[in-house]
Amino acid sequence: MLEENRAYKELLDVYKEIKIISSVESVMYWDNRTYMPKAASAYRGEQISYLAGVAHQKRTDSRIGSLLQDLDAKNIDRNDTTVVAVNLREWWREYNKSVKLPQELVEERSRTAVEAQAVWIEARSKNDFAMFKPWLQKTVDLCLRTAEYLGYENEPYDAMLDDYEPGASTENTAETLTKLCAELVPLIKAIGEAPRQPDTSILKRNYPIEAQRSLVSEIARSIGYSFDSGRLDETTHPFCSGLGPSDARITTRYDENFINSALFGVIHEAGHGIYEQNQPKEHYGSPMGDFVSLGIHESQSRMWENVVGRSNAFWEYWYPKAQEYFPHLQDVSLDDFHFAINAVSPSYIRVEADEITYNLHIMLRFELERAMSRGELKVDDVPAAWNEKFKEYLGIDLPDDTNGCLQDIHWSGGDMGYFPTYSLGNLYAAQMYEKALDDLGDLDADFRVGNFLRLKDWLTENVHKHGKRYNSSDLIRTITGKSLSAEPLVKYLKSKFEQLYNL
Amino acid sequence: MLEENRAYKELLDVYKEIKIISSVESVMYWDNRTYMPKAASAYRGEQISYLAGVAHQKRTDSRIGSLLQDLDAKNIDRNDTTVVAVNLREWWREYNKSVKLPQELVEERSRTAVEAQAVWIEARSKNDFAMFKPWLQKTVDLCLRTAEYLGYENEPYDAMLDDYEPGASTENTAETLTKLCAELVPLIKAIGEAPRQPDTSILKRNYPIEAQRSLVSEIARSIGYSFDSGRLDETTHPFCSGLGPSDARITTRYDENFINSALFGVIHEAGHGIYEQNQPKEHYGSPMGDFVSLGIHESQSRMWENVVGRSNAFWEYWYPKAQEYFPHLQDVSLDDFHFAINAVSPSYIRVEADEITYNLHIMLRFELERAMSRGELKVDDVPAAWNEKFKEYLGIDLPDDTNGCLQDIHWSGGDMGYFPTYSLGNLYAAQMYEKALDDLGDLDADFRVGNFLRLKDWLTENVHKHGKRYNSSDLIRTITGKSLSAEPLVKYLKSKFEQLYNL
Repeated sequence: MLEENRAYKELLDVYKEIKIISSVESVMYWDNRTYMPKAASAYRGEQISYLAGVAHQKRTDSRIGSLLQDLDAKNIDRNDTTVVAVNLREWWREYNKSVKLPQELVEERSRTAVEAQAVWIEARSKNDFAMFKPWLQKTVDLCLRTAEYLGYENEPYDAMLDDYEPGASTENTAETLTKLCAELVPLIKAIGEAPRQPDTSILKRNYPIEAQRSLVSEIARSIGYSFDSGRLDETTHPFCSGLGPSDARITTRYDENFINSALFGVIHEAGHGIYEQNQPKEHYGSPMGDFVSLGIHESQSRMWENVVGRSNAFWEYWYPKAQEYFPHLQDVSLDDFHFAINAVSPSYIRVEADEITYNLHIMLRFELERAMSRGELKVDDVPAAWNEKFKEYLGIDLPDDTNGCLQDIHWSGGDMGYFPTYSLGNLYAAQMYEKALDDLGDLDADFRVGNFLRLKDWLTENVHKHGKRYNSSDLIRTITGKSLSAEPLVKYLKSKFEQLYNL
Repeated sequence: MLEENRAYKELLDVYKEIKIISSVESVMYWDNRTYMPKAASAYRGEQISYLAGVAHQKRTDSRIGSLLQDLDAKNIDRNDTTVVAVNLREWWREYNKSVKLPQELVEERSRTAVEAQAVWIEARSKNDFAMFKPWLQKTVDLCLRTAEYLGYENEPYDAMLDDYEPGASTENTAETLTKLCAELVPLIKAIGEAPRQPDTSILKRNYPIEAQRSLVSEIARSIGYSFDSGRLDETTHPFCSGLGPSDARITTRYDENFINSALFGVIHEAGHGIYEQNQPKEHYGSPMGDFVSLGIHESQSRMWENVVGRSNAFWEYWYPKAQEYFPHLQDVSLDDFHFAINAVSPSYIRVEADEITYNLHIMLRFELERAMSRGELKVDDVPAAWNEKFKEYLGIDLPDDTNGCLQDIHWSGGDMGYFPTYSLGNLYAAQMYEKALDDLGDLDADFRVGNFLRLKDWLTENVHKHGKRYNSSDLIRTITGKSLSAEPLVKYLKSKFEQLYNL
């Protein structure tokens, strides 16, 4: 039996050790973004880059190479989905990529990320793109150098994308996103012209933060997020992070005069957290206990945030409770509230965008990143290019860079190729949900009585428990019997919003 | 120049790396004790013991030994207080100690600490000394075995004390503490019989936690604790922890019906934090950037907590602000409040003891530890000896062992020789403060107008900035021109409390 093989066991131990180091690194990041004192930033950079360096060294240790060679990991059949085969295949994939990167580059990337993030925070608050520009340039250069070391099929962006969505190609992604956006631009236009419009001012009433905290915690718990293995904290740019097999923490930001940020932010992050909390613990530290890709991760958050959390059935259960927390909602009907939280309207900030326009925010970033990676767009010209595309897709002008190209943390964190996975998440979510309805029947009936665990268990069964058994394309095919397509998302969005807006 | 020496530089790098690992470990502990979710506990244990193992391996690497040998670190003149000499001397000291201990003993000590602590928690809650007895015996045996490996001048307790207070001798410590207690026992008796007594019930009114949090934060900031390089969080057993050169965090616990815990707890921890924040950053990771000893660390917290924080002048400034936070204090005079926070009264629990009786709690533990280490006291007889001494020093009977010899965590953690450093802290603080008054003149005048920074800067200049340049005995002599003596503390306590109690 291969499980008994000494080489395989040694690999399990090595990767368990690497996971300890990288999970410690995650704690350092979490702290960095929640509670760390300001002045600690520089040394935190040293701590993190040291850990990243040690982990990188271990990941690229030639001992792994020779163990994998002994086990012929390179030639594992992609269709063999047994535990050992999956682990060997993924270890090989990771090892092969990581040995291509020089230690010096890896360390510079993590150091740059920490420093650039501190600058970005200030630049954003001061609306000062010039302050951030050299760091963006450095990030682009580092990402391109990385891509050259890794190699790619058609263009450097393939290598960048592959970091977040293994196996995805820039060209296919561009094609699917183009199809999606081609359907969405006219839909957005029709919605903008519709006579029936929601009153979104009700979302901008006074929502005391303590009450928000209680409501969103209750909701997160109800959909299956465990606070015994997690927690909810405040941060500037919300995220979810797995810090251990029983430690997946989520974060949010509260706006006293806008319920959406924390409400849908937390449902979103809880979706990520539920995925982290339900991966098989016995495989923690090996690919079978890890998530598939950012796109699949995002499908979990988007499904809970949008498909479930913005559905009428969900609010049939939660709205009376929300009215208790915020008595001023007593004069607002469930329908009006439901319409308001589904308002579609072009806006500046990606993380606050509605379910439809969100995808155009992504398209814009994807195109800009791709252009930068091809040398077709200079860092100097990013603000202008951003504003121009924004106008083209969403029809409105941006007031400043704080609301434009300085809004996202990603570039300051060294992440290029990450953005498309958000829209891929929407696409996977819609396609999976279609199948969940086939399998489980009337989920709305569950939601109306506050039962969200049948869906959660279906997701655990079909997605979470498999770890990296399948890559994202294979997973979506395994679950739904079809390759990823724009169709289910387009269908879902059209049906929902044509009804809401009476089109 | 020795600074240019390649071996010296290599040592600096090695120890810088060890410091990165141990500072990461500190972040993991801090998180463990503040925010970590419950279910994460087991894996956190794995993460921390991995980091501790790596650091231990690096600390005892024979490469360090041969570099130190090349530099003849063993024979550095103790009076040479240049940076290089200090670092070499302290590195040698640490390395030489660590290689003397067999790995098997080190591991047994940490294993025993974990197991003994679990038993101690149960024994304490059940008031069952018999249950804890075998573990105390094992701890004493392990500490004695350790002392034999390390060597000592006069008695094994020297080696134990040396772990926490390098260079201190058992005999000198005993002599100073004996003198101190000889003066305090009659003082406590006189205080107990004094007709004028404080009304401490005012400290047990309702103190809303949010207001406590604001007040104690304001105070901590005013005495020089930096929130840019630190933060204040809640925990069960308050502590201060240095997580980096610009990251020293403090913790507290709030009791809504007792102002003292958080109020003096935070001033105390802030004193530790100020020490951590003002060690020379350019020497972070080497002895010149590290604290002297537990006693000196404690002198910083005790000076701010007691000498400053319980002084009349301090409250002349802060009391009107406290009355704003807690309007029910409007009917309490400053004098009554000041008297209440300085109430002296024998009590069972060390951590809740007042400024005077605290030292007798320590004397008792010190004498028992020393007697055990000499084989003059059997573990079986600890409860009886404890109770007898307690009656002798504090004049009251103990109800049970939970309130007696089972109250402290130290023995179960394998720490023998730690207790005396608490009283040494009080002694150092009083002797330093006497000199600060000589140098700075009327500090009370500063305090009355809320200026605490002249004292803080004096401490930085005389203590913080020297790192481990001097050991504690040398430091106190360098600052005050005299060896440590009981006199300043006795004088300070007598003058303060004779006045307060009208003796």
